[in-house]
Formats: sequence, structure tokens, C-alpha cells
Amino acid sequence: MTDPVIARLLQDRAGFVARLAELVACRSVSTDPAYAEGMAAARAWWCRRLAAMGFRDVGEIAAGGHPAVTARWHGAGPDAPTLLVYGHYDVQPPDPVEAWASPPFDLTARNGRLHARGVSDDKGPSLLALEAVGAYLAVEGQLPVNVTVLLEGEEEIGSRTLATMLQGNRDRFAADAALSADGARWRADLPTMTIGTRGNMATEITLRTAAKDLHSGRYGGVAPNALHAMARLLATLHDAEGNILVAGFGEGAALVTEADRAALAAIPYDVAAHDASIGIAPSGRSNAEFLERLWLRPTLDVNGLWGGYTGAGGKTVIPAEAHAKLSMRLVPGQVPAKVAAALAVHLRAHCPKGATLDIAPTRDGTVATLLEGDHPLLVAAEGALEATTGRTPLRVRMGATLPLTDIVQRVLGIGTVMFSFATADEDFHAPNENWRETAIEEGFAAWVALLRGLEGKSRADFAAFRRE
Amino acid sequence: MTDPVIARLLQDRAGFVARLAELVACRSVSTDPAYAEGMAAARAWWCRRLAAMGFRDVGEIAAGGHPAVTARWHGAGPDAPTLLVYGHYDVQPPDPVEAWASPPFDLTARNGRLHARGVSDDKGPSLLALEAVGAYLAVEGQLPVNVTVLLEGEEEIGSRTLATMLQGNRDRFAADAALSADGARWRADLPTMTIGTRGNMATEITLRTAAKDLHSGRYGGVAPNALHAMARLLATLHDAEGNILVAGFGEGAALVTEADRAALAAIPYDVAAHDASIGIAPSGRSNAEFLERLWLRPTLDVNGLWGGYTGAGGKTVIPAEAHAKLSMRLVPGQVPAKVAAALAVHLRAHCPKGATLDIAPTRDGTVATLLEGDHPLLVAAEGALEATTGRTPLRVRMGATLPLTDIVQRVLGIGTVMFSFATADEDFHAPNENWRETAIEEGFAAWVALLRGLEGKSRADFAAFRRE
Repeated sequence: MTDPVIARLLQDRAGFVARLAELVACRSVSTDPAYAEGMAAARAWWCRRLAAMGFRDVGEIAAGGHPAVTARWHGAGPDAPTLLVYGHYDVQPPDPVEAWASPPFDLTARNGRLHARGVSDDKGPSLLALEAVGAYLAVEGQLPVNVTVLLEGEEEIGSRTLATMLQGNRDRFAADAALSADGARWRADLPTMTIGTRGNMATEITLRTAAKDLHSGRYGGVAPNALHAMARLLATLHDAEGNILVAGFGEGAALVTEADRAALAAIPYDVAAHDASIGIAPSGRSNAEFLERLWLRPTLDVNGLWGGYTGAGGKTVIPAEAHAKLSMRLVPGQVPAKVAAALAVHLRAHCPKGATLDIAPTRDGTVATLLEGDHPLLVAAEGALEATTGRTPLRVRMGATLPLTDIVQRVLGIGTVMFSFATADEDFHAPNENWRETAIEEGFAAWVALLRGLEGKSRADFAAFRRE
Repeated sequence: MTDPVIARLLQDRAGFVARLAELVACRSVSTDPAYAEGMAAARAWWCRRLAAMGFRDVGEIAAGGHPAVTARWHGAGPDAPTLLVYGHYDVQPPDPVEAWASPPFDLTARNGRLHARGVSDDKGPSLLALEAVGAYLAVEGQLPVNVTVLLEGEEEIGSRTLATMLQGNRDRFAADAALSADGARWRADLPTMTIGTRGNMATEITLRTAAKDLHSGRYGGVAPNALHAMARLLATLHDAEGNILVAGFGEGAALVTEADRAALAAIPYDVAAHDASIGIAPSGRSNAEFLERLWLRPTLDVNGLWGGYTGAGGKTVIPAEAHAKLSMRLVPGQVPAKVAAALAVHLRAHCPKGATLDIAPTRDGTVATLLEGDHPLLVAAEGALEATTGRTPLRVRMGATLPLTDIVQRVLGIGTVMFSFATADEDFHAPNENWRETAIEEGFAAWVALLRGLEGKSRADFAAFRRE
């Protein structure tokens, strides 16, 4: 017999997609102030929807940055656990817009996938989660746990004010565990639970070689070129295989053991297919090497590089300035401030002759996280996945960063389970971001199964996992 | 007693500056199609002015690119020499506009200099030249030589169609020598004649490492980064001292001899002051080494470099594409096509693992030039400078390129004398381009003296210097 909550959700499937189209039409790009109107529109949309679902205390809350949307249903009583259900309404910039096959803010169905900026990261998955909770509440008249909703507006810019906002509202957000609708399933063909994330850190550097741009005919041969200097400097960061050459970069990082490598080798993965799917040259790496690089080793990437004349035609200029944006992914044990310091030492030591280096102050960064294997919410989530897919989920990690996991642990003393129905091949942060349509049915079933699995749980079950 | 032509010019000095302001207000940027209207406005302005001066056959002439403005006064008779007086009405892009202290297309006087894009390169110097010729014609009723005016619209984009245009109109442009109002005096404190130019060559390269931009959390560590590849590739082009490492790059180049070095050492030059004037780290180079690098050695500069996210804030992207614009300055003996081939071989050989390289087709390029020491127009020009400055001009070269010199030699079989009253420190091609106000009086005097010095010359005097 079909679960009546799932029946209700499936009956309204078209309504769900229509609401998702409204939500992605809100251009909520958090990194660029030009999109402020879209950010406000997304918040207003969510407030209306949460109120309609029966949530109380619906509103916005901020600590100097983009406000979060929050709401509560605390009708399960003081002995029931409280879950902080998390998602984010902000998205990455759509650039380069010309690379999109359909307009980035118009939800477009194509080849079994819905396309739009933010559809997979994280508007689809977060709407899916809360629609399931709302349907449960509508059908059953109550939820098995107390729920506090937190929809962040700064996930794509490193959750700048989330810690401050939670710190200033600890009572409002007090919970026994966090349940994230963000974070992405590793892949579509295998049920997995993600138990760890990499941290991150970002900075920007500028090199200057002259007081002004110079004409290459008048100064060519006698003036240094900032772009040459930048190329020389960036070329010192990695070897030809892409390994990081910054001394002290990995200080404190958990060593990768032979047991780790054996566990990775046991996870089936077609590396050649992966390489082909993103159009990169075949790496020839084994499963274990691939997963080790993706999950257990840090990275250092140049995300943007620019200087000189970049318009149409040519310009015979010797550029006086060059700029680069850099970001890093960190593994458990790495301390962001120490990583930033090691990078700064390297950059200063390798700054080419004739150039002066300016390193922008780094933000705090985010540490990597790893969840306990017997955490009751993790076990319940694994049970829900097993019940709806018929397969035991594999425990995996993710190469990406969820600042939430680190912040709620530090501020609220709780662990986070990621229960997302996005999948990692859906071009987050790139043109043509998309979301499998099948995730809708799978996600409805799993979220309802998880709520069913939490029936009868009490706060006491979570006591051992608090991290004061 | 003041020369009546000079008296007339000085009396109308304010009118000259007002006309120059009108001319620089025409936004004649040739490299970017967005400026087509400004290009047309500059041509229309020149046609009106040349007709008002008494030139005949005033009009535009084109060969598939931006039209040139041309005009003639051939009343000196068939035995008098014909001079092709050259300038250009196109200018460099004003970018970065925010670095200008006054709007780039508003002529602004400040600290004894006029500021605007193109004021020095080449609108001021070309207007100066033709106003002097026009005043001579008005006062004397005739000129000592036949004059054909050629104001090019593609000097800043490598004179793409100039050769074709001259080739198709050889009778119209037949002359005994070319006299250029472009080319820049080397410096303000010393009368000099520029007898040689460097050639040039430009290309653009693209590296691709994946089919699309990738999220650094999902792919960081397992996907190559196009910006890393570009940095590695560009870092192979020069050593730490800026010397070019491309094998075969200098093939055919005239060797720098000890005699060359001795001649350079005899030219006074304050290298430390030069370095300080453009805000570069002190090079510690001698006169001779400095001038050798600037005049007698080729260069290879990256003029623009870009890829990934370059907007506000950060974006955790692994860019799939990186782009660079490159240009070269060539010395006598280097063949542009061979230089381009050597560069392509180097780039392909050093293309990093995992990246594919695309090299845009190079245009033909321009060879370096060197004028005969006893050319009658050179000797007359030196005489005019000596008469007006009281000092014997030094023969120097320039590090920049004047495609004209190469093209009129190849197509019309004549040499070019550069007689410009721009000076090399006037920030051509950079923000805050400017032109010394004193160049106006100096230029008027010298151009009139040169015309006086050509009185009595015949075509026969130039016969030995034709280069069929």
C-alpha cells in the first residue's frame, strides 16, 4: 500500500515542478551585489511557501550579510529530538552566460533533466525536502520530530555570516542534529551516505611591475611584464602532475593509510568513464588513486586569472598588473589559517624579480569534517535509503565543502547528516546546471521514509553525540 | 625676422588647439567595431579640414578595411619631388577607462600637457604637420614640393589593408619619399632623427583542459586546470631575466656588433631615471645594454591573459579554457612568418600534459626597417632640426613599429623619414596619454624649416634612393 504522504506528493508532482520554476527564476546570486533584487525575491518566495505548509515563526534573520530564511514546527514536544533542516537559496553566478543552451534562470526540461542555475545546488533538493516535510505534516497532522528550518543565503560565498548569526541566536536554532538537503549524492547508480567533506580557503593575489601599462614598442625589452611574472609565479605552485609544491601546505593533514587506500579500492568506480564524461585527457588513475585525490588530499586551484588587454583585436601593451583568484580544498587536520600562511610564504619566496606582490586578506575558511559512524541520524538515514532503494548505502566522502557542517558543530555542538537528492555530475557552478527528474520521486520516497524512521526517537538517543 | 608662415601659425595657435579638441573627440578606436561611428566622424572631420586648407582630390579610399583619408596638392610641377605625407587618425582603446584622470576623449590641459586618447599618437602630430603645410600654401600661394596626404585608419591594428590599398592605387600614391608625422621623437631634451624601426607580429592562443568548467569541490584533484596549464606554458617563454627562450626566434636577425654597442654607448641616457619614471624596479643596466634591448633585440610580450571567474567575489571553479594574446617586436633580418613558426613549434612542444593548444592564425606581420644615411629627405629633415634647435640631431632608432615604412618600401619603392613631434614618454596606448604643449611651437618651426629646405629640390635628387 502506498504511503499516503508519498501519494499526496506524487499527485502534486506538476505543482512541485511549477513551484521550482518560480524559485529558480529568482536570480539569487550572492557573490555579486548586482543581484540583490533576486536574493530578496527568493527569500520572499520561501517565506510564502513555508507559511503555506504550516510552519510557524516564518521570517528572515541576518547578521550583517544576506539574511537566512527560517521557520519552525515544534509540535512534537520537549522529549522529541529537534532537527535543524538546512538548505540554501543562493546560487553561483551564471557566467559564462553564452555557454548555456537555455536561459540560466528559466527552468527548462531536456533529456530527462531540469536545467537552470541553482536547480541542483540547492533549490531543487531543498524544495524537495521541505515539500516532503510539509506533506507529512498535512497528511499526519504532526511530525515525529521538532523541525527548525534554515535556508541560508551565503552558502556560495563561504557562509560568511552564518556562524555569527547562529551564535547570536543559539536558543532559536538549538537542535539535536542537523539534516542537510545540500551536499549532493556522489552518484546516481549507487545509494551512498556522505560522511565527510573537504574544507576550503580562498584568496586573491595581485602582481605589479610598473606604475602604469606601457607600450610594447616604447618599452619592450626594458620593462618587466606583470603577466610574465604571474605566469612564472603560478607555475611554481604545482608540478607537472598537478601535485602541490607549497611547503607546509599539508601540515596537520590526516595521513592517508594503507587501510584508507584499501577501503577506497573497494568502492567501484569507472575512472575512464569519469574522465570521458567531462572531456579531460584520460588520467589512467586507479579507483583508489582517483578517490584519494578527490576525498583525502587537499587541492589548490587558480579559479580566475586576468590582466592586460582582453577585448576584441589586439593591443601592444606591457601590462603593469596581473590578478589571480585562488582557492583551496582542505582535508581533516588542516588548519585554514596555517594553510594560508604557508601559501603566503611560498608566494613571497617565489615572487619574480621586478614584481611586487599583494595578497588579499583571506577569510576564515572552513575546516574539513567527518561524522561518527554510529550517529543515530546517520543510521536512520541509511535505513531510509536501504528501504527505498533495496541496497545498503556505501559510506563515502565528498571533495566539496559544506561550511554548515563545520559551523553547526562549532556553534551548536551537533553533527550533520547530508541527505541530498542532487548528484555530483549535474554541473553545479558551471553552465547548464541540471537536475535529474528521477530525483523527485526518489527524494520524496526517501524523505518520507526517513521521517517514518524517526518516529519514536527521543532526545536521549542523541545525547552521546553532542559536541559541547 | 619671423617667417611669415610661422607667424600665421602662431597667431592661430588657439584655433589649432580647438581643432585638435574636435579631432580627439572623435572616438576613432580601430580595433573594436563598437567604435565605428567615431572612426567615421574622424574621417569626416579630416576631409572638411583638408578641403579648407586648399588640398584637392580630398576623399576616403579603402581596400576592405577602415578607409584612409587622402588629399593632394600637386601644383609644384612634374620635376619637383612628390612627398607622401603620412599620419593616422585611428587610436588605441581607452581601456582601462577608470585609470584616466580626465575623460579620454575630452582634450584636457594639465601641467603643460594636453591629455586625450590619441593626442600624441597620432592626432596632435599629424594635425601639426598638415596645418604647417596648409599655412605655407596659404601664405606662399604654393608648396616647394608636390604633396599627397595619407591619413590611415588602421595603424593601431597593424595596417591590415594599407598594402592592398596602396597596391591598388599605385599611380595615385606614387611619390619620391614618404614623410611621416607618426613615429615619436625619442626624447624631448635632444634633437634626434629616427632611422630604424622594429617590426612586429601578433597572435592569440587558447588552452583547453576539459569540455566545460568544473566545480573545484566535485573535481578538485582529479581534473586539470586550464589556468595552471597556461601559467606553465607562458613561463617557458622567457628566463628570469626576460630573455626569450624560444628556439629559432632570432633566426636571421642582424647580429649586434661591438661597433653597434660602441655607438649605443655614445648616446647619453639616464637608465635609472627611465626606470624610475615608469615605476619599475631599477634594472641596473648600462646605456648600451638598455638601448640594445630596446632597439636592436626582439621582444615577446604577453599583452592579455584571461580565464575562469574574474568578477566580484569568488567562484570555486576549475576553468576549462585559458586565453593569451601575444605580440612580438622584430629586428632587421627577422622574417615574421619564420618567427611565428618558431613560436608555434615552441608552444606545441611545451603544451602541458592534459591540455590542447589552439594558435590563432597570425597576420602577415611587419618587418623592421633601416633608412640610408644619405637619403635627401633625411638630410633635409636633419637640417631643419639643426636650424630650429641649434643642435645637430642624433641618429637613433625606435623600438616600436611603423608598418608604413615597410609597406611604402615594398609597394611604392620609397624610403620614409619620420618627422614627428610626439615624444616617447607620452603614454601612448596607456591611460592618460598626453602631448607636450611645447611640441606645437617646435613642430610648427621645424615643419616650416623643412619645407623651406626642400625649395629647389628636384625629382632627380631622389632617383638613387628608389627601391624598385
